[in-house]
Amino acid sequence: MSLALDPAAQDLLFREAHTAKTFTDEPVTEEQIQAIYDLVKFGPTAFNQTPLRVVLVRSAEARERLVKHMSEGNKAKTSSAPLVAIFAADNEFHEELPQLQPTAPGLKDAFFSERPVREQNAAMNATLQAAYFVVGIRAAGLAAGPMSGFDHAGVQKEFLDGDHTPLMIVNIGKPGEGAWGERSPRLTFDEVVTTV
Amino acid sequence: MSLALDPAAQDLLFREAHTAKTFTDEPVTEEQIQAIYDLVKFGPTAFNQTPLRVVLVRSAEARERLVKHMSEGNKAKTSSAPLVAIFAADNEFHEELPQLQPTAPGLKDAFFSERPVREQNAAMNATLQAAYFVVGIRAAGLAAGPMSGFDHAGVQKEFLDGDHTPLMIVNIGKPGEGAWGERSPRLTFDEVVTTV
Repeated sequence: MSLALDPAAQDLLFREAHTAKTFTDEPVTEEQIQAIYDLVKFGPTAFNQTPLRVVLVRSAEARERLVKHMSEGNKAKTSSAPLVAIFAADNEFHEELPQLQPTAPGLKDAFFSERPVREQNAAMNATLQAAYFVVGIRAAGLAAGPMSGFDHAGVQKEFLDGDHTPLMIVNIGKPGEGAWGERSPRLTFDEVVTTV
Repeated sequence: MSLALDPAAQDLLFREAHTAKTFTDEPVTEEQIQAIYDLVKFGPTAFNQTPLRVVLVRSAEARERLVKHMSEGNKAKTSSAPLVAIFAADNEFHEELPQLQPTAPGLKDAFFSERPVREQNAAMNATLQAAYFVVGIRAAGLAAGPMSGFDHAGVQKEFLDGDHTPLMIVNIGKPGEGAWGERSPRLTFDEVVTTV
């Protein structure tokens, strides 16, 4: 046993956790999302740029508009999940850098002065944060259902600031009946890891 | 307290964990990396594509070659960390899909037949896995030092298969003296999360 993390936590976050396709009706509260954020906000990003932005789709009206943009296979679960979150990357994250990285005040206007550099950094680092957030949803005793199958341009236009790029949409709630099937296989260590 | 994860695990993975800049000499064993992989391999990716590939740089000769590609500010820590890992995205991950997603045998030749689609999927999903791996390093009681500052083309050419794109390089070990400074500020909940 080479891990410091206790086995119950390993199970909660990874071994027993699955992407959920069905959910119970139990609501996901604002306090739960705040507790998740207050934990996962500490996950590392390059230069602490933390470009992830989250839109919680809570109203019935907004949910209906969102479902229209989901791919066919994702419509039913996005309709029925207690809470749906849009994860996006803020391509103008550099505006916050003087506050987030006070030891390197020049970063904003030097390294991040060009939009393509910012877009690439925002996509990568917001994706890291999206993964931390999924781990955090599980840390709250909830199941996550991350999805990339949706009309990205449509969601961008209808729900996001012009400078925010959608990354994924995540259903959140307590897993319902038949929330998942059998675990899909994983690659072996030797298929993934090589040593030089 | 809205989280199911116990507070010691919260501290280990997020609250007390920091990106390390210095390390002790204590080696990082193959068993530790295997235990990390065997935990984080369960983290979700789109269609279970799991495109992350890892190169462990263990020999002194390979370490020396790698350090040459690091940006100036990353050379010293990359030289002195007990273990350094190159995280990369496999743009040909679809070759493994019939094994990884046996319920959708058509995916490989339909949705993922075009290289640009695969590259975009590989980058995003391997980045999610990179974040799970960083969490896993912390779960092993080790500190991670993820870095994006290196000559990506040089590392690609010298260390990776032609179809693998480098994402980040991660120093791994027990934190040494002065491994980190003060925690950088984080955005508030209201700066990151909006509700519709």
